[in-house]
Amino acid sequence: MIAEIISIGDELLIGQIVNTNASWMSQALGKIGVPVRYVVTVGDDGEDIKAALAVAMQRADLVLLTGGLGPTHDDITKKIVAEFFDSPDMKRDEKVLEHVRNLFAKRNLVMHSVNEDQASVPEKAKVLWNGAGTAPGLLFEHDEKLCAVMPGVPAEMRFIMNESLLPLIRERVHDSVILHRTIRTTGIAESALFVKLSPIKEIEKFARIAFLPHYAGVDVRLSVQSRSQADAQNLVATAEKIILEKGGEFVFGYDDDSVEAVIGRLLTERKETFAIAESCTGGWVANRITNVSGSSNYFDRGMITYSNAAKTEQLGVPEEILIEHGAVSEQTARAMADGVRRVSKTTYGISTTGVAGPTGGTPEKPVGLVWVGLASPQESLAKKFIYTQDRLVNKERFSQAALYLFYQFLKGT
Amino acid sequence: MIAEIISIGDELLIGQIVNTNASWMSQALGKIGVPVRYVVTVGDDGEDIKAALAVAMQRADLVLLTGGLGPTHDDITKKIVAEFFDSPDMKRDEKVLEHVRNLFAKRNLVMHSVNEDQASVPEKAKVLWNGAGTAPGLLFEHDEKLCAVMPGVPAEMRFIMNESLLPLIRERVHDSVILHRTIRTTGIAESALFVKLSPIKEIEKFARIAFLPHYAGVDVRLSVQSRSQADAQNLVATAEKIILEKGGEFVFGYDDDSVEAVIGRLLTERKETFAIAESCTGGWVANRITNVSGSSNYFDRGMITYSNAAKTEQLGVPEEILIEHGAVSEQTARAMADGVRRVSKTTYGISTTGVAGPTGGTPEKPVGLVWVGLASPQESLAKKFIYTQDRLVNKERFSQAALYLFYQFLKGT
Repeated sequence: MIAEIISIGDELLIGQIVNTNASWMSQALGKIGVPVRYVVTVGDDGEDIKAALAVAMQRADLVLLTGGLGPTHDDITKKIVAEFFDSPDMKRDEKVLEHVRNLFAKRNLVMHSVNEDQASVPEKAKVLWNGAGTAPGLLFEHDEKLCAVMPGVPAEMRFIMNESLLPLIRERVHDSVILHRTIRTTGIAESALFVKLSPIKEIEKFARIAFLPHYAGVDVRLSVQSRSQADAQNLVATAEKIILEKGGEFVFGYDDDSVEAVIGRLLTERKETFAIAESCTGGWVANRITNVSGSSNYFDRGMITYSNAAKTEQLGVPEEILIEHGAVSEQTARAMADGVRRVSKTTYGISTTGVAGPTGGTPEKPVGLVWVGLASPQESLAKKFIYTQDRLVNKERFSQAALYLFYQFLKGT
Repeated sequence: MIAEIISIGDELLIGQIVNTNASWMSQALGKIGVPVRYVVTVGDDGEDIKAALAVAMQRADLVLLTGGLGPTHDDITKKIVAEFFDSPDMKRDEKVLEHVRNLFAKRNLVMHSVNEDQASVPEKAKVLWNGAGTAPGLLFEHDEKLCAVMPGVPAEMRFIMNESLLPLIRERVHDSVILHRTIRTTGIAESALFVKLSPIKEIEKFARIAFLPHYAGVDVRLSVQSRSQADAQNLVATAEKIILEKGGEFVFGYDDDSVEAVIGRLLTERKETFAIAESCTGGWVANRITNVSGSSNYFDRGMITYSNAAKTEQLGVPEEILIEHGAVSEQTARAMADGVRRVSKTTYGISTTGVAGPTGGTPEKPVGLVWVGLASPQESLAKKFIYTQDRLVNKERFSQAALYLFYQFLKGT
């Protein structure tokens, strides 16, 4: 079974929002052995939607459409798909209507006739129950192929996928399993890692292998397709063993492991704690740390000391250091890390101070410069990194630099 | 001129990474009047890439491919596209080779033969200079249609678009301008806003209008296409006037305006400042605030008081309150907001305390519950919100709740 996703919406096409729905659906389908071969994005245009649907129904067995099922005039998907499947007449689904009425009553909102229309479904379609919103999903079956239509609101799409569609698809596919395994490395360039793992033909005998560079390292992704789960797991394990033998010293995690999750595991094992003092990263490092469930066990507090007064008052950074060396300096980074560690009584203190931009740069301290500080029971140190001109990219890279420095330190001690 | 984007990479197709490149390219092309009609994502598979390219070269005048130009074996785009355009033979581009050598020397990295291969380009292709990386962009011209091939690394794609491709396309299109204008509202549901603005046919005479709901409101997007910039601006302004007359009281910003940017403008005008004390949001609110350039003028500091000790030590939240009412309570939220305002000597203090999940919920205080606190020179208050089960979604919604509460408060005072 081959799947294709059609994402509908001008907001996707003109780049106003990023297509996270397609990513989520691809992952969910991959897990049950259904590869997605094409993802197509089209605007809110009837002819374009029909043309995309015609191509998709030819080359795929399962077509998933999302978007354009809302109550307003620009939501044309239901009408267009109904026409495509030669089912222009609508029937009212009483169960859906009651559900919509209940939702409006519960939220104390006035219901309009456009909301009632959401309970109208094409005669040939089966309703896919949407417990998370007002627009029902629709399932068409045509020439033994399936076409599911879902709302674009992520929580609603996920509800329908999880409750109705994935179970239904799982019943139809028994003969194939796809497994992906990502081995995450840091501290080595893509081409050097490629050479180190070569000849990769040895691995490609049983697994597909891809190199995916990111800010602070390279991910190596293995993919296998097989008849059984056990066999697929076996193939992945064999390929992984080869990679670990050749380049294991650069591996820091697997699959969805983020460096912040790996740091969390290390600290939990060691029963150690830490605190953060951020300036230029403005909360982004702490935010990533607290994205990990259970982080309250090792993360005590963070201080976003944006002003110099805050650096002195919260962290005890001496005013002389700020005057003599400036807020963006090795000395301030170390004093911040020392200070947040001392105030919080944690094992480690981490700090960032830099120039995120676009303004505030000088010839000596340009936009893109960051100092990362680290204080441990034995020592304190700071390291300098230089990146680019873009404020948001800098905040992201500065945070990566701080987290990877902390990871390397923990690994080395 | 109609454009189509083909994004190449298994990592996109299986949902490992989100396709931000396509969004960026669509926006850039939209600004110079070239609509993108389809965005297609395919994996690293030669046959699939060729099939997508064949469809695209038929229905579009300009085809942009990104991805698969790296130095490793899974990067097959160059070979496949060269075959498609019947130009299998490669020539070595000495300028590109020198550039690659310089980059490696500068970064003190060893150069491998796979890196030298990046200087090989198909004979029929024109090189699009990539000053941000090692893989050159390629431009093919066929039957008066253009096909550009670029690396998938965002900074490299952007370099090539900005320096070479957009200027080249701009020369070819003079006769059309597309303008988008987004009017951002909060405090009204999608269907209610739709009814309020109806009959929208009045607006649709000269502009396309779309309703885009998000966590805390509804965006109304206007799109017009016209011969001249002046005429397009006129049409947008006319449509906008109608919308503001009918629903202006719900409008908080325009286009890329985030609520944090609007808060920043309000505070700058009023010469006021604020500080944040976050618990469950873990730095996400401060991070959004500091994403706005110039935020150091009104944002003094943030405290991520994850532990109870931090709440007492940094913010002076009385231990009795934490014992009697718990960390997630109206009383604690108010004490945190009061505390961070007092310590930071700012005009306002904002706080969040809640249960992000997935663990830590109780029947009285379930996962998804958050209290947002706000302290001003006159008063302090706290408001309760209840959301869902997912940790990351909760952090996002909690942050939205805090920022929108602060915005509403500023607007009302």
